[in-house]
Amino acid sequence: MAKKRNIIVGQSGGPTAVINSSLAGVYKTAKERGFCKVYGMLHGIQGFMDEQYIDLSTQIHSDLDIELLKRTPSAFLGSCRFKLPEIHEDAEIYEKIFQILDKLEIEAFIYIGGNDSMDTIKKLSDYAIVKGHDQKFLGVPKTIDNDLALTDHTPGFGSAAKYIATSTKEIIRDALGLTYNDKEAITVLEVMGRNAGWLTGAAALARTEDCEGPDAIYLPEVVFDIDKFLKTTKDLLKKKESVVIAVSEGIKLADGRYVCELSGGADYVDAFGHKQLQGTAAYLAGFLGAETGCKTRSIEFSTLQRSASHMASRVDVDEAFMVGGAAVKAADEGDSGKMVVIDRVSDDPYQSAAGIYDVHRIANHEKTVPRSWLNEEGNYVTEEFINYIEPLIHGNYEPFMVNGLPRHLVLKK
Amino acid sequence: MAKKRNIIVGQSGGPTAVINSSLAGVYKTAKERGFCKVYGMLHGIQGFMDEQYIDLSTQIHSDLDIELLKRTPSAFLGSCRFKLPEIHEDAEIYEKIFQILDKLEIEAFIYIGGNDSMDTIKKLSDYAIVKGHDQKFLGVPKTIDNDLALTDHTPGFGSAAKYIATSTKEIIRDALGLTYNDKEAITVLEVMGRNAGWLTGAAALARTEDCEGPDAIYLPEVVFDIDKFLKTTKDLLKKKESVVIAVSEGIKLADGRYVCELSGGADYVDAFGHKQLQGTAAYLAGFLGAETGCKTRSIEFSTLQRSASHMASRVDVDEAFMVGGAAVKAADEGDSGKMVVIDRVSDDPYQSAAGIYDVHRIANHEKTVPRSWLNEEGNYVTEEFINYIEPLIHGNYEPFMVNGLPRHLVLKK
Repeated sequence: MAKKRNIIVGQSGGPTAVINSSLAGVYKTAKERGFCKVYGMLHGIQGFMDEQYIDLSTQIHSDLDIELLKRTPSAFLGSCRFKLPEIHEDAEIYEKIFQILDKLEIEAFIYIGGNDSMDTIKKLSDYAIVKGHDQKFLGVPKTIDNDLALTDHTPGFGSAAKYIATSTKEIIRDALGLTYNDKEAITVLEVMGRNAGWLTGAAALARTEDCEGPDAIYLPEVVFDIDKFLKTTKDLLKKKESVVIAVSEGIKLADGRYVCELSGGADYVDAFGHKQLQGTAAYLAGFLGAETGCKTRSIEFSTLQRSASHMASRVDVDEAFMVGGAAVKAADEGDSGKMVVIDRVSDDPYQSAAGIYDVHRIANHEKTVPRSWLNEEGNYVTEEFINYIEPLIHGNYEPFMVNGLPRHLVLKK
Repeated sequence: MAKKRNIIVGQSGGPTAVINSSLAGVYKTAKERGFCKVYGMLHGIQGFMDEQYIDLSTQIHSDLDIELLKRTPSAFLGSCRFKLPEIHEDAEIYEKIFQILDKLEIEAFIYIGGNDSMDTIKKLSDYAIVKGHDQKFLGVPKTIDNDLALTDHTPGFGSAAKYIATSTKEIIRDALGLTYNDKEAITVLEVMGRNAGWLTGAAALARTEDCEGPDAIYLPEVVFDIDKFLKTTKDLLKKKESVVIAVSEGIKLADGRYVCELSGGADYVDAFGHKQLQGTAAYLAGFLGAETGCKTRSIEFSTLQRSASHMASRVDVDEAFMVGGAAVKAADEGDSGKMVVIDRVSDDPYQSAAGIYDVHRIANHEKTVPRSWLNEEGNYVTEEFINYIEPLIHGNYEPFMVNGLPRHLVLKK
């Protein structure tokens, strides 16, 4: 009897609005290419090691379910933040993983995630080569942060950018409507982004024919100078009644401290040793209120920016689906230790295609916004930056509305 | 020469996603009923007293513009928070207002707002009667808070409820995807509502076939007992890995202090003497983190819940338009000192119609959630509550998308 051709897919790291569209792409392409079973690991590699997995055909019964899955935020299979040890540190973990893979007759292992997840793909494919296992390991990029190298951009970024730009437009209008005469007001928006300012820069998309956009934008790529920040804001207040400023949660002072640390927040450290950042906008709004006497307000987009699938971009959902499918195709054709990427084929009209790169070239490199895509003062993004991200927010995937609310596909255990 | 039949309309108080749909209803109906000029006061009665107004026909050129206006958040004309003095306190202000009204040959004055705005309608119509002026004064209800008496519900509430329920669903999924095994997590959502918990209760709409909904809901109508709150949360953590709790910004302790005051926040008082509330969820998340050792997160829906017109409810937009038009009709037929209300004609299928009430019966009465629409423990709403609000979130008004973002109609000065 020929060996079964099974495939397993997992999701890892912080979710996005379109991470399940990649899952849908994996499932559909695997079925089309004749794979037998398509397993889903629950809570990524962490759940997998506890032998937590499901047969996806028990969850997805129709093309309607696939469309629902594409419109479902968060990780359908559950996610994890788990870093595999180095192979020489703990070989047992690897042996256990490959025992389970063998038991399930897995031919291909697809992992949807960000930088940390590509590290998992790298280690597993290295181990397979060293030990002579023939499973294929493929990575599918996913992160709202857009900080993965070699791919033009990451699935999840476009939808988060669209949500941020839409909400920024709505907030700017809200603030404008409420300011009259000498009652200036300042709104500080806090956007996700530890080291890369792509998402914060996306607030600039709100600058359209019908909206002035935010007045200043501060990314973590530039050292944050609070005196210059105050001066810029005071200058803006001379010209406008309502000033709206977007800041990244990750902006840092010259001495290396995060701005949010000034308020005494930030004491949580996650499994990867990252500080949890929160409170940057609240701190700066308080600071500006005290210094200018204006009414100030802070707004954190918080997890809504990664889970608002009701505002997903069509380009983003479709590309997420495409890279999921491309990973299956690559594995089926014998590739391993690689990540699928998105190549920009054309700017106008915007066109993209799936490419593929050796995961050793990708893992743990963070792609930040080039300094040349910020203005000289470091408080706004340039036209080039905007031209780069603008096509990524185009088109909608209307939610399937049931009784007035978006319907999602949920795991039945 | 016959006296000109002009009309003026203004917007006041905190905006909603559909306050401009009422403005569109006023404009369209005024034109249909043969009014000459339709003026818009800029920044409500405050701007009006500074003679800040526009001819709306310079802004609205087509039915497309009317549709755009219905999809535009915040107050198109600008809003204000201005309380007219009692007539006996400052008659000069009233004389000035009526001078301007006479100069502009105004027959009807329409004011779109909440409790405080209905107070303005009451005073102006009282003054007109006492002094023998023949202008008509009509109020159009508007508030996301749903705290106006006599109307079944308020325009703006349904869209805010839809946004809150949608975002709550998305946040619950996000949190679920990230919790695995003994890593419990708590999310505390902060919803607007000073004294009335209608909006916070709307989070319960997230309880659908595909979502468990929030696990507990705390409204300002019930005294907040932090010990019971902790016990309830600990009990929930025994059963679930991800606990999501919705709290109103206005919840208060038995001694009358707002919960957010415990963190030392809340020091801003607005023109109406209301404390500005913020930080309730952040305080409670910190408290629960310290008491349970769980990872906690707080999310404030902030101004997004009143400005997210991209998630507006069709029922709400249409009703807002209806009450705007009904106010013009009432004024044209000789009514004054009245507010248009929404009467619920039928529950299933849901149907509503415009009614009208004497504004003296309405002003400054806050409608809160009946105690019987909360469970005994005071930590969830009942089926009756849900049946009341559910029809109000039905249907969509798709935004007009231009280059990937919702387009709004903006004032050209």
